[in-house]
Amino acid sequence: MNAFPAALAKAAHGLDIAWDATVPREVRRHIRTGDYRGHTGGLARGYVQANLAILPRDYADEFLRFCQRNPKPCPLLAVSEPGDPRLPGLAEDLDIRTDISSYRVFRDGEYDGDVVNIEDLWQEDFVVFALGCSFSFEEPLVDAGLRLRHWEDGSVCPMFLTDIECAPAGRFRGRMVVSMRPFTPADAIKAVQITSRYPRVHGAPVHLSMPELIGIEDVGRAWQGDDPVLTADEMPVFWACGVTPQVAIRSARPPLAITHTPAHMLVTDRRNASLAVG
Amino acid sequence: MNAFPAALAKAAHGLDIAWDATVPREVRRHIRTGDYRGHTGGLARGYVQANLAILPRDYADEFLRFCQRNPKPCPLLAVSEPGDPRLPGLAEDLDIRTDISSYRVFRDGEYDGDVVNIEDLWQEDFVVFALGCSFSFEEPLVDAGLRLRHWEDGSVCPMFLTDIECAPAGRFRGRMVVSMRPFTPADAIKAVQITSRYPRVHGAPVHLSMPELIGIEDVGRAWQGDDPVLTADEMPVFWACGVTPQVAIRSARPPLAITHTPAHMLVTDRRNASLAVG
Repeated sequence: MNAFPAALAKAAHGLDIAWDATVPREVRRHIRTGDYRGHTGGLARGYVQANLAILPRDYADEFLRFCQRNPKPCPLLAVSEPGDPRLPGLAEDLDIRTDISSYRVFRDGEYDGDVVNIEDLWQEDFVVFALGCSFSFEEPLVDAGLRLRHWEDGSVCPMFLTDIECAPAGRFRGRMVVSMRPFTPADAIKAVQITSRYPRVHGAPVHLSMPELIGIEDVGRAWQGDDPVLTADEMPVFWACGVTPQVAIRSARPPLAITHTPAHMLVTDRRNASLAVG
Repeated sequence: MNAFPAALAKAAHGLDIAWDATVPREVRRHIRTGDYRGHTGGLARGYVQANLAILPRDYADEFLRFCQRNPKPCPLLAVSEPGDPRLPGLAEDLDIRTDISSYRVFRDGEYDGDVVNIEDLWQEDFVVFALGCSFSFEEPLVDAGLRLRHWEDGSVCPMFLTDIECAPAGRFRGRMVVSMRPFTPADAIKAVQITSRYPRVHGAPVHLSMPELIGIEDVGRAWQGDDPVLTADEMPVFWACGVTPQVAIRSARPPLAITHTPAHMLVTDRRNASLAVG
């Protein structure tokens, strides 16, 4: 899920956090105890944050194949054993039922409210999926000197529903959602180079310039997030977005499915730099 | 120097070459003896071909600094010892005075004709520069399944003089020349990824889309090479071009300077794949 670390960090700091929000284990502990219910952008900088999807086993195999066939919008970081709420590859102490600051519940594919933990909703046939998130590639972009509009003005990164059909798998299908960041051509080239090193967090852009070629009629009007402003020397650069699996879940209509609430990500102990290849 | 391998290969084959033109040493031997005076595109596929610049020692140090400061248009593969016509790092048998099929002579920065060898022009203070050429990155683009318009229609890759000023060094200065290849956005992203692996042969593009931002008023009219045709779903992608040093040599006005004639490259024993990084 794309979000807005500058604004979020401000929001987080505005909460007057008295504990060390740079340590992922501390972030999880304060979320688990109910001390912290906010956004995770700007927290535990340098560490991987992940998109969350929880599905009943009957749907999980199909969703796993959907992710395998659509690695750019659905880059799989970890999958749990059925019924197991832990993902020890991402953090040893992690309990997925309590460690997200806000969960989103879907029943029969329809949104059914947000909750602060899922202990009561947990099922023995649940499978947990953690998917890479653009936070991880935005950090090296900024470290390389590129400027991210939504970090600077505290807006929400704009997202668009494209006409690019994902490869279907069983009941999971749908069009790809993309996030958009404006760059000058020279910076767009650098952004391709840098994000290509992070295939496990969406990787290289899927498209740049000419938004009409992927079904975006007005790049000034976001489908989700804030409407972007592009200057005359900038082009829109589009990355596959972690909202795509939510579109596929709506299409598959499982009786119960749970994701994170946008910007309330799973905070892990993996370092972003550990995901780099090449 | 950008050229047009499809057309050149045809031209070469049209010459009914009886020897093995896939072996760089054979190509050089037949050029050296005067058997072959044609283009080198399509010959010795898989091996590095290079741009050539030969300058008097009094200018060579400044040109070396010019290359160091402008590695994208002037990626240095090899520099000779002063007065030494060999570049053993590129080919053990190489004699730069005889092994190019056509040389271009500049006196006081002005074009003064093409010659088939430079034994009579050779000076004891000459320094030889071999610079990377786009042939080396076009091959992996095609191997990756991308289509190069100028390969397919046998045209000359279009070049443009930009308003991008190179970093000057002594008497060498001038604007950057770029070559242009049209791609769909998805292929443009792949082309950035692939050519980024070849920094010693111009590397990643310097610009894409919006040609007016680098001083190109009409991308349909080439400064050198053939006028390009872009389809509605293509954008222009621009790479720094090995013609740039010739612009800088014209500006520096050395009493005598020698380059290769366009498309008559230095054929080396280095493999293109050996230049890849990452």
